[in-house]
Amino acid sequence: MFTLPLLMQPQTLINGQASDAIGLSDRGLAYGHGLFETFLVIDGQPVFYQEHLQRLFRGCKRLGIPSDCLDSLIQQDLQKLVYPAGRCVLKLILTCGSGGRGYLTPDPASPARILILTSMPEYPDSPEDGIRVRWCQTQLACQPLLSGIKHLNRLEQVLARNEWHGTDIREGLVCDTRGFVIEGTMSNLCFIHEGRFCTPALDQNGIEGVIRNQLMQLAVQQGLKVEVSNYTPQDVLSADEIFLCNSLIGVWPVVALENHQYAVGPHTRSLQAALTQRMVQC
Amino acid sequence: MFTLPLLMQPQTLINGQASDAIGLSDRGLAYGHGLFETFLVIDGQPVFYQEHLQRLFRGCKRLGIPSDCLDSLIQQDLQKLVYPAGRCVLKLILTCGSGGRGYLTPDPASPARILILTSMPEYPDSPEDGIRVRWCQTQLACQPLLSGIKHLNRLEQVLARNEWHGTDIREGLVCDTRGFVIEGTMSNLCFIHEGRFCTPALDQNGIEGVIRNQLMQLAVQQGLKVEVSNYTPQDVLSADEIFLCNSLIGVWPVVALENHQYAVGPHTRSLQAALTQRMVQC
Repeated sequence: MFTLPLLMQPQTLINGQASDAIGLSDRGLAYGHGLFETFLVIDGQPVFYQEHLQRLFRGCKRLGIPSDCLDSLIQQDLQKLVYPAGRCVLKLILTCGSGGRGYLTPDPASPARILILTSMPEYPDSPEDGIRVRWCQTQLACQPLLSGIKHLNRLEQVLARNEWHGTDIREGLVCDTRGFVIEGTMSNLCFIHEGRFCTPALDQNGIEGVIRNQLMQLAVQQGLKVEVSNYTPQDVLSADEIFLCNSLIGVWPVVALENHQYAVGPHTRSLQAALTQRMVQC
Repeated sequence: MFTLPLLMQPQTLINGQASDAIGLSDRGLAYGHGLFETFLVIDGQPVFYQEHLQRLFRGCKRLGIPSDCLDSLIQQDLQKLVYPAGRCVLKLILTCGSGGRGYLTPDPASPARILILTSMPEYPDSPEDGIRVRWCQTQLACQPLLSGIKHLNRLEQVLARNEWHGTDIREGLVCDTRGFVIEGTMSNLCFIHEGRFCTPALDQNGIEGVIRNQLMQLAVQQGLKVEVSNYTPQDVLSADEIFLCNSLIGVWPVVALENHQYAVGPHTRSLQAALTQRMVQC
């Protein structure tokens, strides 16, 4: 394993070959017929690799994308990349491959594995110590056929994230058309209420985050009762501690939600520390 | 304008340059942040060009994609293609362009215009004289923010279209999560009931087809009352005439919906003929 200077050029592979462009007939472009995973990579090791892959496999099953030998093919791809020391980001896109004009999946389908290795985004304002968030007006549709998985149809997230500009607000919380709070535009939502670890149910929409699942396990280990349910904005506002999570940011405590202030609480700090330890170990 | 032999190679342009591949950081691939239009081209002329472009502009506004000079840029692109005599298909994809990892649209965004010119699909079994259709189990979510426009998030259509194989059934009808019939997987639905021209409301989901709009105008001209409403499967089943439409197929009469048989009725034939005339004239 080689090391690279800090400012790295993106490295891109398609099906194991160096390439930075994909054919115009790819179903990922035409219909969003594909999935993606964003890995934090530490010293050349993708963190929570198996957990990301399990979600990818669930998505393949849902979208009719063949996944034979996918694990070993990705493993081979990963060995062709040159990793910097420390942290970087690996984005894996799996599309259903090329296939004519119609919505019908070609038989056999030839999925395209796209790997993009880039440098870690920098957050000079220490968001791990607390961020300000807002409510988004964009509401997520209810579509159980697509909920939980990380597919390429992300227009709702694009609309929600474009509701604000500037760096003061780091994330927006999104409700669905029923009025329940689901997640952030790029993160999962967790909060502590009267000693319970709470996170929204994702059976109608939202993405089941790898870090969300890890935090649920860690919460149980730390003696917290874990509750997955439908929550209104008022439920979230009345929480004792609020935090957001994803694979790159880990845990970001929320210190302000619109005009409501929150302290970075003991459960948030404890889970954040336990997650950091688990990320380095895995 | 040159002519080409019948079996043409696809011609592809990206922003006016010959290219058959798009960069991996394009937001069309990453999030489906884009739109598309499928034009029938007759003797080098895209049919209902302005109507397609108006839908494209509506989509741009909805998705925050800049559309300055877009019409004239597409006109310039169109002049770089070599058209066969007779009919062919032009697919235009407009993405929000390249833009990093995040959902936030880059400022300024540089949209990508993708043109793909291919030969006309062949239908040797004369579907213009009647097709068999089925019900799909896939239900469309209700998302008014994305309804009507022809965006690149088409996983629901992919799921619905993959519910059946074989060529006996040519199209599937899709309901939404409220239980209302919305459209076919690749077509709009119209039906005649007691002398009224009926087509589902598309304020919650579905694509506002260019041909659907043309047929609504033609129906008025032919003295039919036009009704746009929410219809149940039973409403459709009890229709006197049923037909499907899109830019490539024109009008396909439905002669069987599951086990129910329908005649190709006089209104269907009359609208089909009027549409054909308008397509050639425009």
